[in-house]
Amino acid sequence: MQPDLSFLDLLSASEALQRHDFSALELAEACLRQIERLNPDLNAFITPTPEMACQQAISADALLALRPSNITDLALLGLPISLKDLFDTADILTSAGSNFFAGNIPSEDAQAVLKIRLAGAVIVGKANLHEIALGVTNINPHFGTCHNPWDTACISGGSSGGSAVAVATGMSLAALGTDTGGSIRIPAALCGVVGLKPTFGRVSTRGVVPLSWNLDHVGPITRTARDAARMLSVLAGFDPHDPASVDIPAEDYSAHLGDGIHGWRVAMASGDYVENVDPEIHAAVEAAGSVFKELGARLEKVEASWLADMALANSRMTQADGAAFHRKRLEMHPELFGVDVRQRLEDGRALTSSEYSLARRVQVESRRYFEQFFEKYDLLILPTTPIPAPLIEGTQAIQAARQLTRFTAPFNLAGLPALSVPCGFTGNNLPIGLQIISKHWGEAKVLQAGHSYQKLTNWHIRHPGL
Amino acid sequence: MQPDLSFLDLLSASEALQRHDFSALELAEACLRQIERLNPDLNAFITPTPEMACQQAISADALLALRPSNITDLALLGLPISLKDLFDTADILTSAGSNFFAGNIPSEDAQAVLKIRLAGAVIVGKANLHEIALGVTNINPHFGTCHNPWDTACISGGSSGGSAVAVATGMSLAALGTDTGGSIRIPAALCGVVGLKPTFGRVSTRGVVPLSWNLDHVGPITRTARDAARMLSVLAGFDPHDPASVDIPAEDYSAHLGDGIHGWRVAMASGDYVENVDPEIHAAVEAAGSVFKELGARLEKVEASWLADMALANSRMTQADGAAFHRKRLEMHPELFGVDVRQRLEDGRALTSSEYSLARRVQVESRRYFEQFFEKYDLLILPTTPIPAPLIEGTQAIQAARQLTRFTAPFNLAGLPALSVPCGFTGNNLPIGLQIISKHWGEAKVLQAGHSYQKLTNWHIRHPGL
Repeated sequence: MQPDLSFLDLLSASEALQRHDFSALELAEACLRQIERLNPDLNAFITPTPEMACQQAISADALLALRPSNITDLALLGLPISLKDLFDTADILTSAGSNFFAGNIPSEDAQAVLKIRLAGAVIVGKANLHEIALGVTNINPHFGTCHNPWDTACISGGSSGGSAVAVATGMSLAALGTDTGGSIRIPAALCGVVGLKPTFGRVSTRGVVPLSWNLDHVGPITRTARDAARMLSVLAGFDPHDPASVDIPAEDYSAHLGDGIHGWRVAMASGDYVENVDPEIHAAVEAAGSVFKELGARLEKVEASWLADMALANSRMTQADGAAFHRKRLEMHPELFGVDVRQRLEDGRALTSSEYSLARRVQVESRRYFEQFFEKYDLLILPTTPIPAPLIEGTQAIQAARQLTRFTAPFNLAGLPALSVPCGFTGNNLPIGLQIISKHWGEAKVLQAGHSYQKLTNWHIRHPGL
Repeated sequence: MQPDLSFLDLLSASEALQRHDFSALELAEACLRQIERLNPDLNAFITPTPEMACQQAISADALLALRPSNITDLALLGLPISLKDLFDTADILTSAGSNFFAGNIPSEDAQAVLKIRLAGAVIVGKANLHEIALGVTNINPHFGTCHNPWDTACISGGSSGGSAVAVATGMSLAALGTDTGGSIRIPAALCGVVGLKPTFGRVSTRGVVPLSWNLDHVGPITRTARDAARMLSVLAGFDPHDPASVDIPAEDYSAHLGDGIHGWRVAMASGDYVENVDPEIHAAVEAAGSVFKELGARLEKVEASWLADMALANSRMTQADGAAFHRKRLEMHPELFGVDVRQRLEDGRALTSSEYSLARRVQVESRRYFEQFFEKYDLLILPTTPIPAPLIEGTQAIQAARQLTRFTAPFNLAGLPALSVPCGFTGNNLPIGLQIISKHWGEAKVLQAGHSYQKLTNWHIRHPGL
């Protein structure tokens, strides 16, 4: 029995499996033990799937024993992964964290789930989330509050909170999340793991319960940028059945990870909108800037107050699209929604078409703005969140959403790739996230920067002492 | 004096100018005489610009006398063109057909105007339009009703009605229009001329008074598809200052005009939504289909009831975006708008964000739908309008818009290139338009088809007997 298997990163575990250091079943069991041990307190999973996980692990072991020549095509063979419970899974409850979906057993996998299954992944369970993904606290009145493993009195962040907790605690080596205003990056930052929101249209959202068809993104939560690259290589690709999917060639996102970022032009967001944050976060992000300099990047402070309008437009469009998608549920049984989600949907329903039109205008303008911005810079860096994980007690979901999405939501609106990597801890031992942005379809760049940063730092090596 | 100069097509006139058959000044004067003679009855222009036209013609003649080697770069040298009065023109009233803009003297030209000026065009005036381009009758309570030259008791169609009338009557050889739901193609069809709505993002809309930033298109009105190709070559190109402009290479749209359409797969829209039209229009479009067969195309009838949802979504988005853009005017002085425009703006303001969100969803889905559609077909053909020009008396603007945009609006929503070419006349001698659609960025194809069709037909040769 090797208790630490569950804390390996994806790539190390993959290599070890191929060396037969341990079996896929042993690896799956290590994760399942963590779920069994910690989930009652942390509430990271709505539906663990231990039987399926073991079956898949046994199949993986059979393939690993055969050493087929094309095993490299199975990029996730034998690797335990959890899924936000917003992804359709054939014959398994897909709750969307909501009572409305309590009986929702899809007949097919979501496209992203299908892809990771075909790559050999072992699915350990369906992770807890903020109800219908509309919120970032993961205080879920229907399936219980998801707790932060670094301090269980604090929120995990959300809406992909269970996914982030699973990766932070060895319940799975990686996870699938979705991100409409920060829902991958926020819990990743608050739980001390890596979260990637790819370019809008890069990964199919087919089979994911929609929140906003204009802003929803599917992406991975992992322990390293290198793992996120591996996951993205599996997930990326055109899906003609997803109207938002874009027909652009996928890339090998791992090919240039090790090339460093020497000479890159890096804009560090500054000004009141960005710097009016928790002082420990400000200091950690400043220190991260120094690491970028050490890596040979040319750092420049750039006033970024323009992020405010983008964040507001993203929030409005999310609420309006959410209210449109859930309109019948909101009409017939508003009382079945949690209080905060109901309020936000009602706020969304009350928005006028003019407010939507103006938000859409900001969206189109923001895309052009960043096209020009990224002619001058390779990267933009800023905090992922302005505060570390707040206490569960006293946290108001709607206020928390406004505060925590401040730096993430603009990049949903613009559709840019955005990576959150751990960049420090507060005095209370709560993780801090650094956000790295690049131009459209520039995932390779954010991953290369994240990997370079992680080679010089070890924030991502620490685990919560649970 | 050559009275028929004003009825030359652009290319013939251009060649004749280079042969010195006549001067640019003579050509401009021929058009200005038509304006002087006919505008009091037809009301095609809000602001004729005879002095500027003569100055520009004299400059053109100076260049033509020099025979500079690069004269071919000046694709519109000496050619009289009119502008819908929605395009900003430096130091010239740009009324948008509305009292609100009565004192609006821009300091700069719209990008499209700048481009045709740099190509040597002679601007003869600012053409009448439906107020703020929100309507298709061109019954304008502020600047007078624009009359159809084929029967002055009938509407010209709109909102680029003055532009179409100018081209139909020799007041100019071509015109610039804009099209948000059919505003180039409808008046072109009703006045017996050619109208092209390019792909969304192909031609800059910078400096055009917006109606909908998601649906507005700039395009030419001409007498032939060949002329539309020449105009588009001048107009097309990326504009970083227009957020909707797309950075895709412009093409030589004239290069393959003469190659014919032998073997092309042509879908002819059918089913109740398309065939429930004036019987004379149905017959004319059927006959046009036979011409396509004669040209060697493989014609196939395709049920097209899906156009209905797209037309509705386009109408809603137009009204909502218009209400958002004009919100302060609508709040402060609603009484200054014409009755129908005010009603439509108020209807737009009353739309909810959910209605907008759902319209936007239809937009994204329609783009994907047509991507797949045009993998199977080279072209889609259908009538431009379901009825010929109705009588001015008794025409209700809002009803007329609903009816006349039925076949045009879906292609604004989807952003596809769409050409209207004359394809017949009713028993009452009113023109009929055939609409030719292709995939995104497929302008060369619709123009090639339009040119092939016009080589076998002579509907576009006739002039109204005024």
